[in-house]
Amino acid sequence: MVVNEHVQRVLDAVKEREIERVFFVACGGSSSLMYSSKYILDREAQTITSDLYSSNEFIHRNPRTLNEKSLVILCSLRGNTPETVEAAKFARSKGAITASMTNLTDSPLAQSSEYVIPYPWGGEVKAEESNYAVLYQLVFGVLAVKEGNKKLDSILRTLPHLDSVYAKAKQQFAPTAQKFAVDFKDESVIYTMASGANYGIAYMFAICFLMEMQWKNSHAIHAGEFFHGPFEILDKESPFILFLGLDETRPLEERALKFLRQYGEKLLIIDAKDYDFTGVEEDVKGYVAPLVLNQVIRQFAAELAKETKHPLETRRYMWKVAY
Amino acid sequence: MVVNEHVQRVLDAVKEREIERVFFVACGGSSSLMYSSKYILDREAQTITSDLYSSNEFIHRNPRTLNEKSLVILCSLRGNTPETVEAAKFARSKGAITASMTNLTDSPLAQSSEYVIPYPWGGEVKAEESNYAVLYQLVFGVLAVKEGNKKLDSILRTLPHLDSVYAKAKQQFAPTAQKFAVDFKDESVIYTMASGANYGIAYMFAICFLMEMQWKNSHAIHAGEFFHGPFEILDKESPFILFLGLDETRPLEERALKFLRQYGEKLLIIDAKDYDFTGVEEDVKGYVAPLVLNQVIRQFAAELAKETKHPLETRRYMWKVAY
Repeated sequence: MVVNEHVQRVLDAVKEREIERVFFVACGGSSSLMYSSKYILDREAQTITSDLYSSNEFIHRNPRTLNEKSLVILCSLRGNTPETVEAAKFARSKGAITASMTNLTDSPLAQSSEYVIPYPWGGEVKAEESNYAVLYQLVFGVLAVKEGNKKLDSILRTLPHLDSVYAKAKQQFAPTAQKFAVDFKDESVIYTMASGANYGIAYMFAICFLMEMQWKNSHAIHAGEFFHGPFEILDKESPFILFLGLDETRPLEERALKFLRQYGEKLLIIDAKDYDFTGVEEDVKGYVAPLVLNQVIRQFAAELAKETKHPLETRRYMWKVAY
Repeated sequence: MVVNEHVQRVLDAVKEREIERVFFVACGGSSSLMYSSKYILDREAQTITSDLYSSNEFIHRNPRTLNEKSLVILCSLRGNTPETVEAAKFARSKGAITASMTNLTDSPLAQSSEYVIPYPWGGEVKAEESNYAVLYQLVFGVLAVKEGNKKLDSILRTLPHLDSVYAKAKQQFAPTAQKFAVDFKDESVIYTMASGANYGIAYMFAICFLMEMQWKNSHAIHAGEFFHGPFEILDKESPFILFLGLDETRPLEERALKFLRQYGEKLLIIDAKDYDFTGVEEDVKGYVAPLVLNQVIRQFAAELAKETKHPLETRRYMWKVAY
C-alpha cells in the first residue's frame, strides 16, 4: 500500500517547508478522532510539537507559535462547520499549511483550505480509506519526511488488514453490546473513562453518542485524574464504561479497572487485549487500538438506541435551530 | 513588588539554559490551577511551547520533546501525590529543570525536585503569596527572561491589589451563592462550562467540588464544544453553571450564554465583568479573571455543602482506602 495521493500532496509541501508545530483543529466528533494523533506526535516527534484545539478556541486563543512553520490539520465531515471553516481561513492568514479532511470536496472547508484530503463516509467504507486511515497516513507521513520515522511503513502494512480486524471485533463484542444496552438503558448518567491514545474515543462516546444522540448525562473521565476527585462519585449504582488500550498509558486504565471492580458494579469494560490483531504490526498496536474501539463502540450505541427507543438520529437543536 | 525569592531561583536557572518546552504536570485540583498558565504561554510565548498533563499520563506518555531544554512545573499541596513525585523524578532523569510548588518543603515532592516553590495554605493567605500568584510570577518570569515579555511588571503591580479584589467579589456574590445553594441542592447532575483562561476553574469545580466533595455528577463542558454534542442534553431541567471571563475566548462563553438563556432555565452565570478590578492592570485582566473566579466559586461550594448537609470534607475513598 502507498500513501493516499491527497495526503502525499500535503507531504510534498511539508517536505519543502520547515515545520515546528502541528495544530489539530476541529469540533466534537471530528476533534475526538485527532486525540490519538496528538498522542502519536507526543511520543514519536523529536522536534515537532503539537496542540489540539476546538476550532473556535483555536481562533480566539490565537497561539503565538502559529505561523508559516505550522501545519494545521482540520476536519469536518460535511465541511460546513462554521468555526472550522473560519479556523482554516485564520490559519492560512498566519501563513500555515492547512490540510483539511472532509467528505465533501466542494464544501466551504475544502474551499478555504490549501490542501483537501477527502475521505468516504457511509455504509461500506474500506478501513484503509477512512478518516482515521488518512489522518494516520498524514501524521506518520509527516514524521517520516521530517524526521525519518519508520512507522509509516508499519501503518501502511497494517491498514489493509483493518477491515478484517474490525469485523472480528464487532462480531466478538456483539453479545456484550446487547447486554450493555439492556443493563444501561434506564441510566440517566453514564461515565466513560480512558487515557492516552484511547481518551479521544471516551470523549467521543460521552459527548456524541451519550449526550447528543441519547440525551444521557456523561463525562469522559481521564483514568489518571479519576483518583483525584471523580472517583468519589463511584458506588454500586454508578454506571461506568472503561476502555483499556494497548498504548503505554494502559497502567492508568488498569489501575482504574481495579478500583472500579472493587467499589463499582455497573461496569462495561472493553479491553483491546481481546481484539484479534492479525495483520497489525507490533510497533503500532497501541496506536491502532483506538481505531478498532471506534468501530466496536458504535454497535454499543446502536444497541442502546434500540433499547431506549431513542433513535441515534433524534436531535432537538443540532441542524434544527440557530446557534 | 519583586519576584518571590524561590521563583527567582528558578528564573536564574532558566536564564542560563535554552528552554524550548514547558510542561505543566499535576493531578486534580493542582492540575486545574495550571490551565490558565498554559493559556498564557500559548498567547504570549514566541518560541516556548507547552503542554499540560495529569502526572501519570505525563510519565507513561513520555513526550519525546522532554529533555534538558524543558522546564517542568509541578504542584502538589501536601507534596505527597505519588504520581506527581514520580513525575518529578522522571523529568529530572530526562535532564529537565524541575520546579515544584508545594505547601510542605520537606515533602517527597520537594525532595524529588530540583527547585521548590513553597506557598502558604489555609486561613489567611495573602493573595500575592498564593499558589496562583507564585505560578504567575514563574510563568510571566520565564516569558520575561527568555523573550523580554513586559507583562511580568503588570502582574507584579497587580498582585498586591488582589486581596481587595477578592474581598469585594466575594461580598458581591454572597447572596447569589446562597440562592444557588438553595436552588441547586437537590440536583443530581450539575454541568459547568467555560473556555480559554477560565476552563481550569470549570474543570476544578466539576471534579473537585461537585464530584469529589458533594458526590454530584458533573462534567466541565468546553463552551465551544458545547455546540457539537453536549448541548443536546440541555432542557429547562438541566442545571448549568457558566463562567464568563475577560480573556480573548469570551465570545465562546457569550455564545453559550445566549443558548443557555434561550433553552435552559436552571442557570448560574458568573461573569467576570461584574468584578471590581481596581488595581488590576489592563493588559493582564483576562489572565487574572480566573484567579478571582477561583475565590468566588469556593463560597458557592461552601453554601451548597450547608444546604445539602454534605460537608466538603466528607470522603469515602480519598485518603481512606488504598488506590
